[in-house]
Amino acid sequence: MAYGLARRELRPRVPLRHGEGGKYHLTSLEGLAALSLDALSSVAYGPEAIVLVLIAAGTGALTATLPVTLVIAALLAVLVISYGQVIAVHPDGGGAYAVAKKDLGPRTGLLAAASLVVDYVLTVTVSLAAGAASLASAFPALGSHLLAVCLIGLVLLTAVNLRGVADSARVLMLPTVLFVVSIFGIIALGLLRGHPAAVVGSAQPVHVTEALGPLLLLKAFSSGCSALTGVEAIANGVPVFREPRVKRAQRTELMLGALLGLMLIGLAVLIRRDHVAPRGGVTVLAQLTAGAYGSGWPYYATNLVVTLALAFAANTSFGGLPVLMSLLARDHRLPHLFGLRRERPVYRWGVLTLALLAALLLIAVDGDTHRMIPLFAIGVFTGFTISQIGLVRHWAGQRSPGWLRRAALNGSGAVLTAVAGVVLLATKFLEGAWVVVVTVPLLMLLFARVERYYTAVGKELGLGEIPPALRPAESLVIVPVGEVSKLAQHALTAAGALGHDVVAVAVQSDPVKAQELSDRWERWNPGVRLDIIDSPQRSLVQPIVEYVERAAEEGRQIAVLIPEVEPLHRRYQILQNQRGILLAAALMAHTDVVVCMLPYRLSR
Amino acid sequence: MAYGLARRELRPRVPLRHGEGGKYHLTSLEGLAALSLDALSSVAYGPEAIVLVLIAAGTGALTATLPVTLVIAALLAVLVISYGQVIAVHPDGGGAYAVAKKDLGPRTGLLAAASLVVDYVLTVTVSLAAGAASLASAFPALGSHLLAVCLIGLVLLTAVNLRGVADSARVLMLPTVLFVVSIFGIIALGLLRGHPAAVVGSAQPVHVTEALGPLLLLKAFSSGCSALTGVEAIANGVPVFREPRVKRAQRTELMLGALLGLMLIGLAVLIRRDHVAPRGGVTVLAQLTAGAYGSGWPYYATNLVVTLALAFAANTSFGGLPVLMSLLARDHRLPHLFGLRRERPVYRWGVLTLALLAALLLIAVDGDTHRMIPLFAIGVFTGFTISQIGLVRHWAGQRSPGWLRRAALNGSGAVLTAVAGVVLLATKFLEGAWVVVVTVPLLMLLFARVERYYTAVGKELGLGEIPPALRPAESLVIVPVGEVSKLAQHALTAAGALGHDVVAVAVQSDPVKAQELSDRWERWNPGVRLDIIDSPQRSLVQPIVEYVERAAEEGRQIAVLIPEVEPLHRRYQILQNQRGILLAAALMAHTDVVVCMLPYRLSR
Repeated sequence: MAYGLARRELRPRVPLRHGEGGKYHLTSLEGLAALSLDALSSVAYGPEAIVLVLIAAGTGALTATLPVTLVIAALLAVLVISYGQVIAVHPDGGGAYAVAKKDLGPRTGLLAAASLVVDYVLTVTVSLAAGAASLASAFPALGSHLLAVCLIGLVLLTAVNLRGVADSARVLMLPTVLFVVSIFGIIALGLLRGHPAAVVGSAQPVHVTEALGPLLLLKAFSSGCSALTGVEAIANGVPVFREPRVKRAQRTELMLGALLGLMLIGLAVLIRRDHVAPRGGVTVLAQLTAGAYGSGWPYYATNLVVTLALAFAANTSFGGLPVLMSLLARDHRLPHLFGLRRERPVYRWGVLTLALLAALLLIAVDGDTHRMIPLFAIGVFTGFTISQIGLVRHWAGQRSPGWLRRAALNGSGAVLTAVAGVVLLATKFLEGAWVVVVTVPLLMLLFARVERYYTAVGKELGLGEIPPALRPAESLVIVPVGEVSKLAQHALTAAGALGHDVVAVAVQSDPVKAQELSDRWERWNPGVRLDIIDSPQRSLVQPIVEYVERAAEEGRQIAVLIPEVEPLHRRYQILQNQRGILLAAALMAHTDVVVCMLPYRLSR
Repeated sequence: MAYGLARRELRPRVPLRHGEGGKYHLTSLEGLAALSLDALSSVAYGPEAIVLVLIAAGTGALTATLPVTLVIAALLAVLVISYGQVIAVHPDGGGAYAVAKKDLGPRTGLLAAASLVVDYVLTVTVSLAAGAASLASAFPALGSHLLAVCLIGLVLLTAVNLRGVADSARVLMLPTVLFVVSIFGIIALGLLRGHPAAVVGSAQPVHVTEALGPLLLLKAFSSGCSALTGVEAIANGVPVFREPRVKRAQRTELMLGALLGLMLIGLAVLIRRDHVAPRGGVTVLAQLTAGAYGSGWPYYATNLVVTLALAFAANTSFGGLPVLMSLLARDHRLPHLFGLRRERPVYRWGVLTLALLAALLLIAVDGDTHRMIPLFAIGVFTGFTISQIGLVRHWAGQRSPGWLRRAALNGSGAVLTAVAGVVLLATKFLEGAWVVVVTVPLLMLLFARVERYYTAVGKELGLGEIPPALRPAESLVIVPVGEVSKLAQHALTAAGALGHDVVAVAVQSDPVKAQELSDRWERWNPGVRLDIIDSPQRSLVQPIVEYVERAAEEGRQIAVLIPEVEPLHRRYQILQNQRGILLAAALMAHTDVVVCMLPYRLSR
């Protein structure tokens, strides 16, 4: 069971198809390419987030970018080592929700789930917004339409995911490789050159509003932590690796840490040397790109690669949130609807919910990456902390040799990420983090209330009990008819097979027509009584509901059989059936009888 | 039958309730108040339409307003006399569609119906736009938001009409009386004063672009004919009059003609004397109002009365078009859906369709009355002409004493209105009348295609034939179950009453859970076999559909009974039922079995 859950939850960031066999499993390098894009692409906005905080203390303060980045890299190192242990303990993958539910109890599971929901939504919005900013760096005409670009991207992602993507880990490899090559190209070429090859964007006036004190450094650190989002993906996706998969996954996690750390530090060095400050219309990464490659075609190509990588990173959430929601639905913590898949293996309600939430958030912040950064990392760090605490519990429960060393490692990881989370929250509270503080408990409350409802319903339905024996009953099938026709014949034949007794009923306000119908019925003589109800209001539904209610008083099992004309072509649907559907809905709402629909297929 | 149709179609412009008895029938004066608002309120835009055409030849050309108005008044006189005869021949009222269908055949009926649809939509839009202009004349701040004012008014009208108005002819009396008193006050006071009491609005530069030739006069005439819309309402509503109703209705038609003619001529005289030219921000009627009453509170009050009258005039279409559409639906010329009323006696689909069409048109012309004038009168004149031709046919068929004189009168009426219609069309073709020329045939085509579809379906269903006798059949009821619960017990009990044979079916991908379910089923032992289908895809619907298809091959009558948990509170609806609905929809779409839904009501 836990395995089943894990296999499914790994899908979030591991777009491998269910049921793909061992030969599709990945080597370490392939796994890196497939699973690291979400984490690596955050270098597109993480360093910039640091620069945007530090500039408040003037351009001189930007030299602090490097030390702040080094602290973040150190935190990254702790995380990577910690996750190496997570991989060893949870070789079935899983993700924070499954792990927390198993090791830390249902309440922590809810916290993890709520944090993950926030994280998934923000991964979509931040990646889209950063992708739009990157695109606008290459094509300045888009600069005043960032929100529109984000929303168009969102619509495209939604459409693709509603259709169901034939997702394979391999699809992600090319953008990942292109992205890594581009970024290291920027760092290497940038460092080789003595000074920037080209300067893009328009200079902005710098208003010094704060001194470079500990508070500003903490703020810069917490903004920069947005670069750490996504490093949990490999631990969630261990089952996609080829055996020995724990080893391979650990090696991949190390490689991811090394790549991400090197990128962050390399970019910070370049920022420091070139005195990169925020400039209008282009991102910090685009400035570094121009500095390394000049402003010719490599500049455009690199910006497009970055945009592409961010779009794929946003897409990982579309793999993830709907699956998480389906798990929550299966645990009765979200409406069961989110667990439904139609013919295509797509959780369409989850996809649509994610799209709606992302659209609302993007509109609220006007497509601006930096207004979402304060919200972003908190959910992720909550997940980090929960995973590590779970491991400490695990080690303490097992007490296998060396458990104390391992528990200490994960414990210090938990403390570090918890402290980082608190710093994030404290320094960014008024700038938007309060939204997360409000949203996460509300989501937990929602999950809990849904669960309470389903539990109560389960009790009422007697789930887990043996119901009493069945009692035999007689039945009467009522067939509403409009005219003597093949439709009526079709319906009465089916009704005759189903009921001990069958009666046809018609509503007719015109006495002449009523007599006509009655005459034709006698000529047909189907062996079934026809009751004609007079309805002066020309309303069809109410008289039949009342007729059925009267019949139900006799104590027999009543069924109402409504024949439905089904056109061959969909476009004719609007011409048919509304009466039957209205009647069925009214009967379902007001009576306890069985409501039967019988299709009669037309040839057109 | 014809009477039934007539009684219903009269509702358009005669908002009397079906079933109101004789004591509610109206005297001539009451009938005038109840039925004339649509016609009388057109003086709010008719004279202005003339002025706006003539100004193209300079302010001097405005003296032609009076002669053009006199020609229109003469046409009005012919119409009034003609309609006196329509009243005598069709004392059951009816309207152009019913009359044309009866006397001139189905094709002319379609033409009349299409013209009426266009006319109803335009009555709403022109009245709303003129009402907004009148309101903006009093409150200039609204001048730049005319479209918004129109749309707000439209939303209000739609909401009121969706709820169902307790409409009574008497509701219309007060606004009608207020409107008539206000207009005659303007004329009387205006003529008594030597010169305008106040001038409102800002002067506009006049660009002379045309000479005052016959073409311009024809254009002015055709624009002014928009003032004649609505004079058919009394003839459509004869049954609301007290006996002798033909006499009373004819008298009312004469009074309407006299009132409308006097208003038009009076206003034209004032326009000529005061040299009223178009001024920015205020309507021509508002200028005349200020000229008569000054710019104090009576000015505001009168503008509000005019706005109110126009809003009520717009509302008459909401009484009319949905009823016309229901008649067309009953004649199988529109989807039957338009003939459905839910609990409240409201044709909601007709109301919504009218609101949608009106909103689209208002947005297309940006809430500007004068851009709709070229479209307006054509549909009305088509109706006029059809009614008169119908009467000529009628007289020629009867050949009662004096028939030739009567036929000549209606014939000349028909010729005059036809000529006026052609002039309207020719002079306004490029300014918008082409829209009507395109729309009317398209609507006729739509009606004809819908009718053809329903005819073919009726043939396929064997309507009018006696179907073969019923053949008895055995039945198998399949009950999808999820767990052993009271829900399963409830469903199996009902199934036992309905089927010769019952089988339960469950879908379960997890072998452990499948075994659990099977064990519990055995302990319950309901006397019904349980088939457990293995579904590796976790899809519920497809395996059951396939199971049902296999069962259906045996030749028995198959029914699938789906128990549905029905929450007490609507807000819990989203938590339940989607699976059952999906399954029912899939079975309806892909199989020919009876699909039964059985509600199980929860206490919460």
